[in-house]
Amino acid sequence: MRAEVIAVGTELLLGQIENSNAAVIGEALARAGVDCVRHTAVGDNEERIAAAISEAIERVEVVVITGGLGPTQDDVTREAIARAAARPLRRDELVAAGIRARFERFGRAMPEMNLRQADVPEGGAVIDNPIGTAPGLLVEHRGRLIWALPGVPSEMRRMLEESVIPDLTRRARGATIVSRVVRVAGMSESAVAEALGPLWVRAPKATTIAFLAGGGEVRVRITTKALGETPASGALDDAEAGVRAALGAAVVGVGDETLERAVGRLLGERGWSLGCAESLTGGLIGGRMTTVPGASGYFRGSIVAYSAAMKGEALGVDPALLQRPVSAEVAEAMARGARSRIGCDVGLAATGVAGPAEQSAPVGTVFLAVDGPRGGRVREVRLPGERETVRALAVAAALNLLRLYLMEEI
Amino acid sequence: MRAEVIAVGTELLLGQIENSNAAVIGEALARAGVDCVRHTAVGDNEERIAAAISEAIERVEVVVITGGLGPTQDDVTREAIARAAARPLRRDELVAAGIRARFERFGRAMPEMNLRQADVPEGGAVIDNPIGTAPGLLVEHRGRLIWALPGVPSEMRRMLEESVIPDLTRRARGATIVSRVVRVAGMSESAVAEALGPLWVRAPKATTIAFLAGGGEVRVRITTKALGETPASGALDDAEAGVRAALGAAVVGVGDETLERAVGRLLGERGWSLGCAESLTGGLIGGRMTTVPGASGYFRGSIVAYSAAMKGEALGVDPALLQRPVSAEVAEAMARGARSRIGCDVGLAATGVAGPAEQSAPVGTVFLAVDGPRGGRVREVRLPGERETVRALAVAAALNLLRLYLMEEI
Repeated sequence: MRAEVIAVGTELLLGQIENSNAAVIGEALARAGVDCVRHTAVGDNEERIAAAISEAIERVEVVVITGGLGPTQDDVTREAIARAAARPLRRDELVAAGIRARFERFGRAMPEMNLRQADVPEGGAVIDNPIGTAPGLLVEHRGRLIWALPGVPSEMRRMLEESVIPDLTRRARGATIVSRVVRVAGMSESAVAEALGPLWVRAPKATTIAFLAGGGEVRVRITTKALGETPASGALDDAEAGVRAALGAAVVGVGDETLERAVGRLLGERGWSLGCAESLTGGLIGGRMTTVPGASGYFRGSIVAYSAAMKGEALGVDPALLQRPVSAEVAEAMARGARSRIGCDVGLAATGVAGPAEQSAPVGTVFLAVDGPRGGRVREVRLPGERETVRALAVAAALNLLRLYLMEEI
Repeated sequence: MRAEVIAVGTELLLGQIENSNAAVIGEALARAGVDCVRHTAVGDNEERIAAAISEAIERVEVVVITGGLGPTQDDVTREAIARAAARPLRRDELVAAGIRARFERFGRAMPEMNLRQADVPEGGAVIDNPIGTAPGLLVEHRGRLIWALPGVPSEMRRMLEESVIPDLTRRARGATIVSRVVRVAGMSESAVAEALGPLWVRAPKATTIAFLAGGGEVRVRITTKALGETPASGALDDAEAGVRAALGAAVVGVGDETLERAVGRLLGERGWSLGCAESLTGGLIGGRMTTVPGASGYFRGSIVAYSAAMKGEALGVDPALLQRPVSAEVAEAMARGARSRIGCDVGLAATGVAGPAEQSAPVGTVFLAVDGPRGGRVREVRLPGERETVRALAVAAALNLLRLYLMEEI
């Protein structure tokens, strides 16, 4: 069974609000095993909404509309459905009585336009709205299902979960779409894609792989469709094992196992504490390590030595070395300094040129060093992009160096 | 001129990410005076992307596509445009050479698939991507403009603002829509709206004011429409003067004058250097100060003392005070410690409870302190939200405290 989502509202087209309802509905449809093939947003215009509905029911079996069910003149989703399904609107007297009773209960006069919410395309069913005034609609037209839900996110969600999804799950019987994200560090998107190429070719047709790169990591999303949760999760396990075999230690973890969480877990397992010495990153390595609740169990602190003087005084870097502040030797001395001055088991250091101006080295040149019970390691990396990109990539590269050190991969 | 936006990515349909790019493009098109009539999201499927493009160019003059321009097998927007415009893809050798050079510069082997990013539908133009690898495209087909931008939000935004909007504005001619953002700190969105209420009522009809809150600041966007740049910019000047008069020292600056830039400018004017002492923020205050190129002119560094021991040893906070690490006294001692240990003119400190677990104080309790030539100041703030929100708000509140200190407002 395939579906499309249509969100109604001029404010969406103007970018005044994001179309978060479409994402919520898309996620719920996937859970129900319904293939969502398109999202559309249109303005509060009866003709354009009707056109979008007519096009959608040519392509798919299920259309879920959100928005345009309110009482005011600009709410025209009811009229648009009636037009697309070529049938008149009829006032549902039971719904109308409910709306009248609601106003009486709150002792307010009812503006007549509220009764528009009782209008239903002929043959359609009304979906009760337990937390708002706008009822939803279900119209079956030429074997297609047209659902209309309110645009208010909380009301939409409730009707989606209590009416639409149970109904579609019954109709779809069985098929489940699930996905899992594998996080990879230290490889470019294209290198990951190349390494996984053979896997992509061999994978069962119901399993797909997609890549999303950013912030110094590549997220590999495995998606599969199967009859039932158990086979679906088995297919994901198989695909994840294939990805891990192909990428080895570059795999950081799955789901929300980020670099900082992986590093925190590895430090915890060894009972080691961490301190950082930062230059070009200005504090962002510590800032990222401490996004994890409970980081105080292994993270002691950082010495951010942005000036050469502070590299010498606070970290004990030999002034002779500071002639070339962006160098492997300075990174190593900073890591050792972090370890001794902070009094921790492992020191992690970064020095480099973030730009925009070149210093003693070209923009993007970064030296990273770790010092700890397993000795010292230092790496030079060349990072692309503008100042903030270079800094974010330097943070990720530093954490990944530490991760590989803790895993005894380097 | 009318437009549609097409966002490409299966992750959008599955609701794994929200379609924020469509909102950004919609907002920019509106600013350029272009009527956006539909947003569509489709998956990474060449046939379906091509169908969406073919339908859109039947309806409107301009189609802006985002996503699907990466180097991997699932990036098929180039192929879809070629199919919709019924023309073959040709490899642009200049772009290909640029991609090869980029990999050589960073000393990495180039997976062959990267050259797919140099493929251009015949007759199309390449749009330079200054901050990423995926170039954009512009194809003119039967009098319609088909723009394709990367899906990475920062790259998309840059190409949108530097290429698409200027071009469309030129084509649209006539009415100029301009806007200016006034940044405000230390006030809630509703307090700003209330203070500006009278201004809003008095403003000429062509001038509108909108508020956007986030990250500890409120951005007041003034938008005006006029025939020609000079009257438009005069109307903006008038409105800005009104906002400044109503909000006083809470105004940080206009445009890209962020808190960290304002602080940097004020430090520079006084010839004072800065050092930070951070606890709950883990390094993020220094990280934010150093987003500004040239920050080394006034920023010396930070001591991030996440553990109590490090607050004592590295910052010299009296161990007796550390019985209550989240307190005004500890914040003051940290600011003094930053000043003396880093050897700078001004010390800025933050200590508090980011959550999720309560410590000696409720989640969101934060103490901020400044110490400098004008003496010491300390403030307690109660910040709302979850861990990362509390930390981001603490960074903004600390920088704003320092800003007001430097302006001699406190």
